[in-house]
Amino acid sequence: MSTDRPAARRRYAARMPLEERREELLDAALRVLARDGYGQLTISAIAAEAGVTRPVVYDAYGGIDPLLHALLDRTQERATAAALALIPAGGTPVDLDRWLLEAADGLLRAVEADPETWRPVLVLTDGAPPAVRERIESTLVLLRGFVADVLRTNLDPETDLDVEVVAHSLVALVQEFARLLLAKPDEYPKERLLAAYAGMLALRRRT
Amino acid sequence: MSTDRPAARRRYAARMPLEERREELLDAALRVLARDGYGQLTISAIAAEAGVTRPVVYDAYGGIDPLLHALLDRTQERATAAALALIPAGGTPVDLDRWLLEAADGLLRAVEADPETWRPVLVLTDGAPPAVRERIESTLVLLRGFVADVLRTNLDPETDLDVEVVAHSLVALVQEFARLLLAKPDEYPKERLLAAYAGMLALRRRT
Repeated sequence: MSTDRPAARRRYAARMPLEERREELLDAALRVLARDGYGQLTISAIAAEAGVTRPVVYDAYGGIDPLLHALLDRTQERATAAALALIPAGGTPVDLDRWLLEAADGLLRAVEADPETWRPVLVLTDGAPPAVRERIESTLVLLRGFVADVLRTNLDPETDLDVEVVAHSLVALVQEFARLLLAKPDEYPKERLLAAYAGMLALRRRT
Repeated sequence: MSTDRPAARRRYAARMPLEERREELLDAALRVLARDGYGQLTISAIAAEAGVTRPVVYDAYGGIDPLLHALLDRTQERATAAALALIPAGGTPVDLDRWLLEAADGLLRAVEADPETWRPVLVLTDGAPPAVRERIESTLVLLRGFVADVLRTNLDPETDLDVEVVAHSLVALVQEFARLLLAKPDEYPKERLLAAYAGMLALRRRT
């Protein structure tokens, strides 16, 4: 959309539909988080990062709390969608070993594809407001529930395993892998992590 | 030791050898941490918790930073001692499955016996100063090194396993167990966690 007053337009930042503006501001907030941590996440910092004025941020979100909640909503939706994509529908039986590998692969691929979304959730939680921690914990509860369901559906009924603790263990393991991938991608690329994980699973067959 | 001036003695707090006083103050600091978190760990709070005046704390430690470092030293020594007690000396071969169980059991027993030492390290790290995080990380590096050594010594040479990633995984798993034990001891008592862990290890043999 052309205009004959480019200077005036720049002063108010490029016009943008509200939804698009909000996405852009959330992306800017993620960049601020990744670079400076939760303690520095202010309206001013987000506005500067997005190259807009503070009122543009206030028009889109009304303040830092609604913006943070919107960011949490988006991150939780993405994390849940990535997890749900790996969960077999309604108790469909799967080859458990194969699923354990594919699920880990899928989650690490999601982390690798979108590190800025995952870093503030998995690595940069220091100084995070309680709302962030609560949201992370509730997403983990959801994820563990999915994993426990898959285990219940697919474990040999004679296998007397505490699926709840095993689900905790598996989620903690994938979290640790994701943290390694985010913190030291050169030392711990996804392929290395998955090969080690496959090796651990394969030990069962070899011993 | 009796005295004819009890009132005067109380004003300066019970006399105590310096080493004993320091231990007492570190224990008081741990109680403050467990109850109020890192943000509230001040000389005043520690003095109040120990039932002494602020100068008593300054005489023993000179300030909050030396006190915090002494606390980190003590915690790291205890954690390292608990870990070292479980490591077979100089590459002595062990039954790996049995060792994996005994090591987890030993570490969880240490956590259960002394939750106030472990809580600020494993659970209450929010708001911890960078020195605390660095110390936790260096202890974890040490611990992973021990585990990797035991794996290297005891794995079948034909088992082509990435011991470094496996050590990361095992330490992350025991950390998660310790957190569950500290956070929800009624829901996740040590016995339940170890039984589930043994079940996971035993799966190898059954499939």
